[in-house]
Amino acid sequence: MLKVPDHQVAGHQACDGMVGPLVDDSGHFYKPLQNDERGSAEVAFYTSFSSNNKIPNHIRRFFPLFHGTQLIEASDGSGLHPHLVLQDVVSSYHNPSIMDIKIGSRTWYPEASDEYIQKCFKKDRESTSLALGFRISGLQVHGSKESGFWKPDKKLIKNFTAKDVRLVLRKFVSSNTSADSGVDPDCFFASTVYGGSAGILAQLLELKAWFEDQTIFHLYSCSVLMIYDKDSVSKGRSSGAEVKLVDFAHVVEGKGIIDHNFLGGLCSLIKFISEI
Amino acid sequence: MLKVPDHQVAGHQACDGMVGPLVDDSGHFYKPLQNDERGSAEVAFYTSFSSNNKIPNHIRRFFPLFHGTQLIEASDGSGLHPHLVLQDVVSSYHNPSIMDIKIGSRTWYPEASDEYIQKCFKKDRESTSLALGFRISGLQVHGSKESGFWKPDKKLIKNFTAKDVRLVLRKFVSSNTSADSGVDPDCFFASTVYGGSAGILAQLLELKAWFEDQTIFHLYSCSVLMIYDKDSVSKGRSSGAEVKLVDFAHVVEGKGIIDHNFLGGLCSLIKFISEI
Repeated sequence: MLKVPDHQVAGHQACDGMVGPLVDDSGHFYKPLQNDERGSAEVAFYTSFSSNNKIPNHIRRFFPLFHGTQLIEASDGSGLHPHLVLQDVVSSYHNPSIMDIKIGSRTWYPEASDEYIQKCFKKDRESTSLALGFRISGLQVHGSKESGFWKPDKKLIKNFTAKDVRLVLRKFVSSNTSADSGVDPDCFFASTVYGGSAGILAQLLELKAWFEDQTIFHLYSCSVLMIYDKDSVSKGRSSGAEVKLVDFAHVVEGKGIIDHNFLGGLCSLIKFISEI
Repeated sequence: MLKVPDHQVAGHQACDGMVGPLVDDSGHFYKPLQNDERGSAEVAFYTSFSSNNKIPNHIRRFFPLFHGTQLIEASDGSGLHPHLVLQDVVSSYHNPSIMDIKIGSRTWYPEASDEYIQKCFKKDRESTSLALGFRISGLQVHGSKESGFWKPDKKLIKNFTAKDVRLVLRKFVSSNTSADSGVDPDCFFASTVYGGSAGILAQLLELKAWFEDQTIFHLYSCSVLMIYDKDSVSKGRSSGAEVKLVDFAHVVEGKGIIDHNFLGGLCSLIKFISEI
């Protein structure tokens, strides 16, 4: 049984007759291949990544598992369409709090067309990408059984300033999260979710060490997902905090050069989080 | 007695009636203030940097000492002109080998004018800045008493590719440096100049650690100078390897954000050097 995912916070979504990803009960995430070169680029990335024996095992865990491609009925009912079959990275969570952060002050690669560069350049300048080296693309934070999720509107997120980003990163780990901007977030869960040896900061630092060295891939317009389970941490259990990288439609070869654009943005995000 | 510096490898030079920097015998470097906002921006940077008590002492040594400004006769004989009075960072070397590397895949700051951004953007794309996160702006490598310095032409340097950069970073620490491109550089001095606890790599790593944390300044279009004394290291003495940061006409406030553009480029340079 395929269905529309409950916890998607960014990207193309299956609704109003639009094609979007689907999930099943066994923990698979079906992402429709985009028809242009982006679809084939993402398949090429996952294929190359899966078979590349230079990727250390402790780094693999930051990427969704790849199970090939499959022809399935598209979410809009338009017929069979090729999909990437990936690990559904949130399937093991009941009420995951999720943030999708696009990394890099530049979301375009040098070899792209002028038209594409101009389009990205404008978005990078209008968002926090250029100034901060990253931008928030989407988020949901679980409040309580009663209040459900706080999931700000896409238009609101698009206009986030540096100050908003700082606030939202605090709200993400607070017990008093609400849409009400007057409430000062208490950052009650910061030390367990961001901190600690298994926390998000430790995971981001592991990724950083790899990006200081790896010259295989340059990941443009790729996102870091931060996921955790507020219920679980409220009850004194593990936060289940995880970092995953997603969206590889704009990956290019590294050609022996580190991905200084991704690395710079990642270091900036690390600094923001470490200050909370 | 003021004179034109012997060992300037990049930037405006005092020759053919152009205004350029001057040096004296006591180790001072007089840099003429540019008439536009660049001049005042550089004075503002040095003034702010000198008096900022948040700069750790082990980081201060990477910056030229600042002795204020002074009205002196311009190098072109056009009369009195205000100059920055700085430490002449090469005055203690006899035959310094020097490389000037402009750091950052982006040499413009977000608040600059569109015209200025377009100009820089073009240069960044045409040089290695965009791809590597840095570009070589100038260099001289001492060969021997007989052959003197190898100092490639500015036009040649401007067209350096990633492959050229890799080769030149090897030539910089080789005993068989020559203009002849057929000679494979032996990297004879790599372990003493780049390596070791006082080597260039160790100094760049110290700078990197600071840039992962500091949110005071964003240094656009700023250069790392790498300097050492080949005679000295040939004779088994200290290489005198030093890293200095120069050119602060395009520094802007960090506003609580790390300089991810400089940091990314610096990490890329570190990776290039560590591979030698």
